[in-house]
Amino acid sequence: MRVVVIGAGNVATHLSVAIASLADMEIIQVYSHTEIHAQVLATRLQCDYTADLSHIRNDADIYLFALKDQALESVICSIPSNNGLWLHTSGSMPISVFSGFTERYGVLYPLQTFSKSREITFEGIPLFIECYRKEDKELLEGLARRLSGNVCELSSEKRRSLHLAAVFACNFTNHIYALAEEILQKEGLSRDYLFPLIDETASKIHEMPAREAQTGPAIRYDENIINKHLAMLADDSAVQTLYRLLSQSIHNKQQ
Amino acid sequence: MRVVVIGAGNVATHLSVAIASLADMEIIQVYSHTEIHAQVLATRLQCDYTADLSHIRNDADIYLFALKDQALESVICSIPSNNGLWLHTSGSMPISVFSGFTERYGVLYPLQTFSKSREITFEGIPLFIECYRKEDKELLEGLARRLSGNVCELSSEKRRSLHLAAVFACNFTNHIYALAEEILQKEGLSRDYLFPLIDETASKIHEMPAREAQTGPAIRYDENIINKHLAMLADDSAVQTLYRLLSQSIHNKQQ
Repeated sequence: MRVVVIGAGNVATHLSVAIASLADMEIIQVYSHTEIHAQVLATRLQCDYTADLSHIRNDADIYLFALKDQALESVICSIPSNNGLWLHTSGSMPISVFSGFTERYGVLYPLQTFSKSREITFEGIPLFIECYRKEDKELLEGLARRLSGNVCELSSEKRRSLHLAAVFACNFTNHIYALAEEILQKEGLSRDYLFPLIDETASKIHEMPAREAQTGPAIRYDENIINKHLAMLADDSAVQTLYRLLSQSIHNKQQ
Repeated sequence: MRVVVIGAGNVATHLSVAIASLADMEIIQVYSHTEIHAQVLATRLQCDYTADLSHIRNDADIYLFALKDQALESVICSIPSNNGLWLHTSGSMPISVFSGFTERYGVLYPLQTFSKSREITFEGIPLFIECYRKEDKELLEGLARRLSGNVCELSSEKRRSLHLAAVFACNFTNHIYALAEEILQKEGLSRDYLFPLIDETASKIHEMPAREAQTGPAIRYDENIINKHLAMLADDSAVQTLYRLLSQSIHNKQQ
């Protein structure tokens, strides 16, 4: 099975490395708008690369579009037609983005955060698949099940909500970590102190819904502590506002 | 060494159970304003209990005040005097809250989130200690080091900042999880799907600062996705505002 990877970012890198590790799967080409990115990934995968859409090979079985949403549409309408199965990896783009450009298309959305510098195993990552034609479902589902033990069919509409939830659970959570680290840094305190707390907070919700796991001054809207904290954040009004709104939200959702 | 535990909430429960498990340490009494709470913890520790401040025993070596901040001051000024070492466990209250009531006092602040229903081992929990009299430091530090391999001396002022960072890293993070779960629940999707993502987001920052680990549409302020998400949150304006401010904050802090 030959695969062309379109994109060379975090998702493209991790997904193509995982696919290349499967028996009988071969990445034959990487495309990226930025030639050096295509080259770096192609070197890792030991395959060809191109930064020219018109040079994308037309003899692959699978075309994996792992691109930013803004780039996806313009790339789809610019590549030469072929008979492969076109898959995108976006949580927020509907499957219909391919409509009119090919008859064989689907979605393979991995619900995970990827950084190039960090190794990750695909085994437990939830993969959400959607297929336009019934005839292609076996191919897509087979690929997904070889990558992960956690595969689920999902409509574009539900995937959109899943992606929104993931922005909270990952992107916003990570930013909250960054704000906590900033507070410690200002005091010359090591960010390492937070790891046991962060790990326990994440572990805890495997056992109970987050609403039940909630602790801290905001549940009972303890104005004494909350006002002290707001005063400590006086030099950063954006973070101060976030503190206030998050505390109010905790209090309101607990009622 | 005899210990009286004042409080019967999450911190009191976990800390007293951990102390009771140490050789030569005995919890002799539990106080709580709510008698049934005192009784439940005392039963677990196999010791006496009281809901009457005037009945707190005066023959203990350590008095552990694990109370909500609001309750701490009024309890301190209401208990009979004694010669034990008085310790509170609050991140946000200064050590000076004891001043004028006794000469022997300090702080033992565990940086962790506790729920009564969840077992936890103290071994890796960072414990922050502060002592008023030099003569009592050995006792306090000795106790802390027997509970955890991660003990650090810290001033009240720095501890206050640590507590603020902990509110972000734990309470706000957990609330963000709760908002993500709510989004999935509305769509009838299992919250279990989020666990690998949440776990990886927490693990990742052991390896890199949160700012470097940041992913998602807000970094580049991708208005296409952000506006779609804001539209999806139209039925909950408080959460919609949080989404917008968190995205703006990510974007601003990445610059």
